[in-house]
Amino acid sequence: MAVYTEVSFEDLERLLQNYDIGTPLAFKGIAEGVENSNYYLQTDRGAFILTLYEKRVNPGDLPFYLGLMEHLARRGIVCPLPVPARDGALSTELNRRPCALVTFLTGLSVRRPSPAHCAAAGAALARLHLAGEGFPLTRANALGPAGWVPLAEVCDAHADKVEDGLAALIRDSLAAITVAWPVLPNGVIHADLFPDNVLFMKEEVSGLIDFYFACNDMFAYDLAVMLNSWCFEMDGSYNITKGQALASAYRAVRPLSEAEIAAIPVLTRGAALRFLLTRLHDWVHHDPAALVSPKDPREYSKKLRFHLKVKHAKEYGL
Amino acid sequence: MAVYTEVSFEDLERLLQNYDIGTPLAFKGIAEGVENSNYYLQTDRGAFILTLYEKRVNPGDLPFYLGLMEHLARRGIVCPLPVPARDGALSTELNRRPCALVTFLTGLSVRRPSPAHCAAAGAALARLHLAGEGFPLTRANALGPAGWVPLAEVCDAHADKVEDGLAALIRDSLAAITVAWPVLPNGVIHADLFPDNVLFMKEEVSGLIDFYFACNDMFAYDLAVMLNSWCFEMDGSYNITKGQALASAYRAVRPLSEAEIAAIPVLTRGAALRFLLTRLHDWVHHDPAALVSPKDPREYSKKLRFHLKVKHAKEYGL
Repeated sequence: MAVYTEVSFEDLERLLQNYDIGTPLAFKGIAEGVENSNYYLQTDRGAFILTLYEKRVNPGDLPFYLGLMEHLARRGIVCPLPVPARDGALSTELNRRPCALVTFLTGLSVRRPSPAHCAAAGAALARLHLAGEGFPLTRANALGPAGWVPLAEVCDAHADKVEDGLAALIRDSLAAITVAWPVLPNGVIHADLFPDNVLFMKEEVSGLIDFYFACNDMFAYDLAVMLNSWCFEMDGSYNITKGQALASAYRAVRPLSEAEIAAIPVLTRGAALRFLLTRLHDWVHHDPAALVSPKDPREYSKKLRFHLKVKHAKEYGL
Repeated sequence: MAVYTEVSFEDLERLLQNYDIGTPLAFKGIAEGVENSNYYLQTDRGAFILTLYEKRVNPGDLPFYLGLMEHLARRGIVCPLPVPARDGALSTELNRRPCALVTFLTGLSVRRPSPAHCAAAGAALARLHLAGEGFPLTRANALGPAGWVPLAEVCDAHADKVEDGLAALIRDSLAAITVAWPVLPNGVIHADLFPDNVLFMKEEVSGLIDFYFACNDMFAYDLAVMLNSWCFEMDGSYNITKGQALASAYRAVRPLSEAEIAAIPVLTRGAALRFLLTRLHDWVHHDPAALVSPKDPREYSKKLRFHLKVKHAKEYGL
């Protein structure tokens, strides 16, 4: 967690000339996310986050991300609301990076969610899926099955050095998952709703953040990402109580079809493979001079192996 | 700038059981300082900074640093005020690091101070010197002349790789400065009052931060640190207008004796050498896996060469 691009007071003053958000009172680089540089900005009119988009974010996708947050916020989802510049633009440029100002949300993310947290987050995901309806822009999921193939190729030669048998696990499951990949109800999904991206006040969700993987894909895939990231214990075991809490809270807001439920096992495998591949890529291509430590890909090879033994969505608590 | 030790919501909840500061509303790692891990904490009762002290801070020095901030704050210096735990302790432990909670100060640091900023900061330094009087604890300056010798030895073999003639510059000036090092009025000094450590609201000082080099040493040395860090332009030239503004504002609050003024040229050399040596050390011993980029030592070899030509404090604007 780090800040990549420095922003001085003078840079900030220059930027704020283009915004009508008051006088700055505090400005601190914050360690949020792994992709961008983020600053906490307090003015006499409120609190904001200034994000400078680093090389991994395609500037052409900013209208999708920022427009989506605006769309969702207008429909009652508590998420960062982009603040338009005086000329109406939702993004601009600072220190040679595209950047945007969004509102700051209070709330804290949990590292070890309880079943109650899982339920609250599952319901929030379903509300997000419903609220995304009618958003006019679209963005393909760059990390769906078509995106896995080049990642798997780049990692193939290194995989067994990370874990015995990992190359074969990836090759075999990639082929099997791709063949079985379903077609299901779809729309705007968050695609990365890990516990770090959900803010809580006590056990109530107070905000959803980090929409920089959002895209159009199957709603049930988004649920499968959450079963992976919310319902396993630190020791690698799956907690069916949490899975049940998350999925039923989701279904109380947006019911799942029979086809969606039947597809859950292949979707959880696909979701595990997606995070396994991106983590493995960052692990083997890690620049030691980089400011962040890569996350261990073996967390997700372990989850993938678990999913490969699952035959029915019931085993997840659905 | 980075966060070294992660603190989860659960860690925070555990910590806050020992404090009477309300319910957490927001908690973010911030990129502040280069030595410690810092978190911004907002509760329903106020805003705070949680600092986890990393290996460079000697836990035995915490009573000095934290007690000093408390002492200064009680005497009207706006600086972070340590928040005692329920048992009265100013520091405790979290994730195997000593840690402390202090109040959060609003204000922004400037990268290119104007003469007005220099004057305001100079006056603040003088007020700090007066307010330190009566503080019962003492701490020797680990980065005074005695501390330069081992640093210079460790860097000697590498210096010329960084800059032609740097090893000789260090050897010669170290000997000359040490011989001429004066004895002058002393007390508690900040010892690192760079522009990053002074917060402003417009052109008024709203707070002084980062007391983790504070120690007992000559007051005029602290002024020499500021002449080095506030009064040079980006192109390396010395701005006498800024020097004059800073020093006269200081003297209006705490007059300088003839001996202190006469010593300014050797003190500015000593201050430049101190930052040259620590930067050079971090530059040549830089761990590429570290989370911060080391600062360029050549900024200070250039300043030192400038100081070596100065004959009289007048040339700095005094």
